[in-house]
Amino acid sequence: MADAARDAILPHFRSVGLTADNKVAGGFDPVTIADRASETAMREVLADLRPQDGILGEEHGTVEGTSGLTWVLDPIDGTRSFISGTPTWGVLIALSDSTGPVLGMIDQPYVGERFMGGLGRCNWTGPGRDGTLATRQTSALADATLFTTFPEIGTDDERVAFQRVAREVKLTRYGCDCYAYALLGAGQIDLVIEAGLNAYDVQAPIAVIEAAGGVVTQWDGSPAHDGGTTLAAATPELHAAAMALLNG
Amino acid sequence: MADAARDAILPHFRSVGLTADNKVAGGFDPVTIADRASETAMREVLADLRPQDGILGEEHGTVEGTSGLTWVLDPIDGTRSFISGTPTWGVLIALSDSTGPVLGMIDQPYVGERFMGGLGRCNWTGPGRDGTLATRQTSALADATLFTTFPEIGTDDERVAFQRVAREVKLTRYGCDCYAYALLGAGQIDLVIEAGLNAYDVQAPIAVIEAAGGVVTQWDGSPAHDGGTTLAAATPELHAAAMALLNG
Repeated sequence: MADAARDAILPHFRSVGLTADNKVAGGFDPVTIADRASETAMREVLADLRPQDGILGEEHGTVEGTSGLTWVLDPIDGTRSFISGTPTWGVLIALSDSTGPVLGMIDQPYVGERFMGGLGRCNWTGPGRDGTLATRQTSALADATLFTTFPEIGTDDERVAFQRVAREVKLTRYGCDCYAYALLGAGQIDLVIEAGLNAYDVQAPIAVIEAAGGVVTQWDGSPAHDGGTTLAAATPELHAAAMALLNG
Repeated sequence: MADAARDAILPHFRSVGLTADNKVAGGFDPVTIADRASETAMREVLADLRPQDGILGEEHGTVEGTSGLTWVLDPIDGTRSFISGTPTWGVLIALSDSTGPVLGMIDQPYVGERFMGGLGRCNWTGPGRDGTLATRQTSALADATLFTTFPEIGTDDERVAFQRVAREVKLTRYGCDCYAYALLGAGQIDLVIEAGLNAYDVQAPIAVIEAAGGVVTQWDGSPAHDGGTTLAAATPELHAAAMALLNG
């Protein structure tokens, strides 16, 4: 599915005349021909190989299945990055049962990077290298690197809560979309804090990060796989420290 | 020089146990062994091939030359990205005469992308593709995509000025370091606004963007090649519109 998505997307990446349609009034939620082509390509693979499974996709809606398993697809997470030419967007593929995601992949086809966790898989491949996913053993906020899509997302209250954490960490970086979750799973950063997510934004990251040893919940500690707020941390200790500040 | 820098840097990128020293009291300006090794490798090339030229480098200081030409080197621009594993850092190489940069390269060795402008060159190469650098023909702020390293940089007054522009554009993205200038030269985005830069941060971007048809100055319209604030725009019209708001 990721290979099919890649072949559908890359001809459009940085192409002359690529345009974005806006999906929301009063804001800017872009979608391109590449988003739609990517999801169509993945659905064609599923129709062929897994017709009994359900599908929940960002662009083309929901298909009920009979197997109890659902594929949760974000054909391009980070369309704002995509239409800007930045290589930090990704294709998100998760497989879920009634408990949440059991397998997830974050794929960056332009760079040629793939991060996969769940069902016994826990690895990444990139240009000229590969490795096992494992979160860092960071337990203190003062040692942590935090990524977020703030200030572009969230309500004013959420931004204030986010800032309480950002003030305590060593380094805060902005605007990285799903790539931040991949970096957390690969042991490069320690925290990702987001808000306003949908299930298809977060299910693949959850599977990747949990396989790597990290913790992902909503800000209140409840399951994150249906969307909402997200707090992803390298260790349980760091997760608890950040959650206390988000709710303080 | 870029090949030598790449070979010096990549063994350290995402390596286990990579640590960063802090160069400033009261802040966080990280430098790693990879920054130092990259600049050393480039200086070895210059000692061999261009001993008559001067050198201005971020990590190893200034060498006076006799040719009237100076190589201006940032061995890793975006060390915060580098230590976070994000592929938006770059090696910056500029060649300057008394008027400023005449040749510049922005190189991203992990992705395998190279953007070069000046002395008749105006091209980029990336994984599986290449092209001519040319800025977009965007003239109105309402159609523009703006990149910046705010809110991580700048004074409070500079941040307020930046926000006057950010409010008027179509899309603002954060935290992209030198890669933003490469995207401007490649016609993917329209504006980059920064503050607190040094000569070695900006000279290579200036050469790339000017070769591509764009305009780069400080916020007050004066030359940007000695550092300070930077306003880089795809067209003279867009530059003028942004400059009016920055100084409003």
